[in-house]
Amino acid sequence: MSHFLFDDITVVNPLNNETTEVLRNAYVAVRDAKIVYVGREREAALAALEHPLAGYVEPIEIIPGRHRLLAPALANAHNHMAMTLMRNRRDDANLHDWLYKQIFPIEAQLTAEQVRLGTLAAALEMIRGGVGVSADMYFFNEAGISALLEAGLKANVALSVNPRLTDAETASFEIDEAQRQMERIADFGRGRIVPSLMIHSVYLFPGPLYAALSRLGTELNIGAQMHFNETMREVEECLDKYGCRPVEFAERHGLFERPMVAAHCIHMSESELKILAKHGVHAVHNPSSNCKLASGMADVRSWLAHGINAALGTDGAASNNSLDMFREMRQAAFIARLATGEADALSSATIFAMATRNGWRALGFPNSGQISVGAAADLMVLNTDRPETTPLGDLPAALIFSMDRGAVTDLMVDGEFLYRKGEPTTIDAEKLGYEVRAAAASLIGD
Amino acid sequence: MSHFLFDDITVVNPLNNETTEVLRNAYVAVRDAKIVYVGREREAALAALEHPLAGYVEPIEIIPGRHRLLAPALANAHNHMAMTLMRNRRDDANLHDWLYKQIFPIEAQLTAEQVRLGTLAAALEMIRGGVGVSADMYFFNEAGISALLEAGLKANVALSVNPRLTDAETASFEIDEAQRQMERIADFGRGRIVPSLMIHSVYLFPGPLYAALSRLGTELNIGAQMHFNETMREVEECLDKYGCRPVEFAERHGLFERPMVAAHCIHMSESELKILAKHGVHAVHNPSSNCKLASGMADVRSWLAHGINAALGTDGAASNNSLDMFREMRQAAFIARLATGEADALSSATIFAMATRNGWRALGFPNSGQISVGAAADLMVLNTDRPETTPLGDLPAALIFSMDRGAVTDLMVDGEFLYRKGEPTTIDAEKLGYEVRAAAASLIGD
Repeated sequence: MSHFLFDDITVVNPLNNETTEVLRNAYVAVRDAKIVYVGREREAALAALEHPLAGYVEPIEIIPGRHRLLAPALANAHNHMAMTLMRNRRDDANLHDWLYKQIFPIEAQLTAEQVRLGTLAAALEMIRGGVGVSADMYFFNEAGISALLEAGLKANVALSVNPRLTDAETASFEIDEAQRQMERIADFGRGRIVPSLMIHSVYLFPGPLYAALSRLGTELNIGAQMHFNETMREVEECLDKYGCRPVEFAERHGLFERPMVAAHCIHMSESELKILAKHGVHAVHNPSSNCKLASGMADVRSWLAHGINAALGTDGAASNNSLDMFREMRQAAFIARLATGEADALSSATIFAMATRNGWRALGFPNSGQISVGAAADLMVLNTDRPETTPLGDLPAALIFSMDRGAVTDLMVDGEFLYRKGEPTTIDAEKLGYEVRAAAASLIGD
Repeated sequence: MSHFLFDDITVVNPLNNETTEVLRNAYVAVRDAKIVYVGREREAALAALEHPLAGYVEPIEIIPGRHRLLAPALANAHNHMAMTLMRNRRDDANLHDWLYKQIFPIEAQLTAEQVRLGTLAAALEMIRGGVGVSADMYFFNEAGISALLEAGLKANVALSVNPRLTDAETASFEIDEAQRQMERIADFGRGRIVPSLMIHSVYLFPGPLYAALSRLGTELNIGAQMHFNETMREVEECLDKYGCRPVEFAERHGLFERPMVAAHCIHMSESELKILAKHGVHAVHNPSSNCKLASGMADVRSWLAHGINAALGTDGAASNNSLDMFREMRQAAFIARLATGEADALSSATIFAMATRNGWRALGFPNSGQISVGAAADLMVLNTDRPETTPLGDLPAALIFSMDRGAVTDLMVDGEFLYRKGEPTTIDAEKLGYEVRAAAASLIGD
């Protein structure tokens, strides 16, 4: 394994929700998939790369930093990766019609191999866009995980455990099979895959299932991913059916006892925000999907005011239709300004933290999303020598408002380059493009 | 001059506000800066390229069309081009504070040479993004126009005529000098520059100036560019000062007797929309700038319902901070959905027409923005063989929701390639980047 020196580069490091540290003419050393030096001294950076056994030095690759930024790889905290196969299909429907009339009938025909291809396509798109970790909530999980590992990405994968509904009141799961599946993931995942439980939403699964899902999470010792309050209709149906709002319903069933990644969270009451904060639930903002499906504008400023960890995600490519986290950062800024009428509603530093350290933390990788000694080497390099970022001006505002993913030249995950000088290293893009087009055509039927 | 054959390409042609025509496996021939063939017959396309004098054929360049779309070049209908110099400066202020406290003090120091550089930088960014024509509203117009012509873009340039305010009630202009300036533009503009009058806004110029500006437009026989109803504050101040709303004020002063490009138009009354429609005023939607400055969401659906020609623009790079018309198309779709709560609020076809034919028409080039025999050869080529547009699915939805300007491989303006296979042909990007950074540093003082 090579070691790496990012040489005379500008480091853009999200310290917390308020502050982005910018360190110009910096040196960052990566040894054995960890950051071992961050600072202004080239000699010290090189010294940090020396092997503990005196005199023996691993090969060092030098990455020149002129007109380049080094930032944490982005974290896409809500996604349905294989939905790339349904990209650019039916782009003018609201959530309910889109899901039930368009998506579910297509998904009923999906095969594991199609899921593998769709997941790989999502991975390629994210790799080109500087994303180092993604949430995934989908079916045929082992096919999806195999694609993720082939691509080299880290991920939090929500496992689609199959409930057996024996009657209207009870549900049981194939616990042994789920446990074996988790052991296989731990075995072949090399620590890159964090498993969680897929609990789609309060509106999709029948009521008796939730208590059983909560017990299953405890037995398997894993967290969960879930959609919350994406539309007013979802909230109203929950009030009608259960006499409480979705977040209250989830709390009653103990779903927040384990780590929870809660997507969307648009139509939230004060009481629901307090519940999320109390249980340390991670909330994921999906501004583009929320706009495209006309679902509404989440008030992220109120999440933060309640002390909730706020992350950012693209949602799946069928509802966005892009897995571009730069777009989401910019859209998050826009939505906050529209929702509040204030041009300083969410700072660029806050949004950058949401897209990096908060997202990595939400997905179960708290040691990533920052550039500090001891952190995992999950990093991206951005080219700032482009017309659209000249002059560069203030960072990270430039990153949010003038950059796009075309600026990404390199992506490193766990000390390994998945994207180098604009070329993917783990995926044959031409072959995959051909296969994805064929799979989508056979699935959609045109 | 070469002639061109776009060979076996997919044509995406905005027919009107409701329909985008998609023609696969098509051939498009360009002779002497005009489109001379559009159809499915290669032989007929080649025949259309033959010189009228039998037997003599100009050199023909073949542009292969596999995995490529051919579309009209985009029209950026509201812009302040040289504000690229102020890009990524102060990104958290609302319009009023941003303009008076940040921008005006910097602009007070601008030189003509800086405006030339800033305009050239904007041109380069737009060329890389498939934009063939832009509005420009700025100072030192001849410096700006010289940059536009160097770049090869078409433009509607709002001339900054200098009023002499002799007392509070009257204004006179250097009419002779303005006329000479216009003759020079006609002379060196080669038909690529349409001049108009800069009438900034109701809030910026003193009241007595507007009648005089109206007379000047008539004398010079040109239209105008103006900001309207960008903030509620602007509307309220106008009501206080003049007892009417801005659009009513402009009508009273005869400002709509000549062609008018009206930017923003966010906070509009029913009566104002009727006035715009009655006078054939072109309204320009600037969704990103309106979001970023927290100005509000324009209701473009109501513009269209009134029969107003609706175009799309980026605004200047200091308030956006990007001159990317793909972003604006997507943002227009999002804002419409948020403003109305309807996922079919503005169709992709409508938005594509706004960004192409409606914009060209608004800026005074009604023979561009469409792919038909006899139209001017103002065209862009898009690469669809990219992960983010695979599978391609329905056009033009894919164009709005999954593409970005990185898909643009070629831009042709007036039958001349300004961008070919991803490289600008008229501008030295490296040299310009260096010069723009230096100019911005000296202007901003860091």
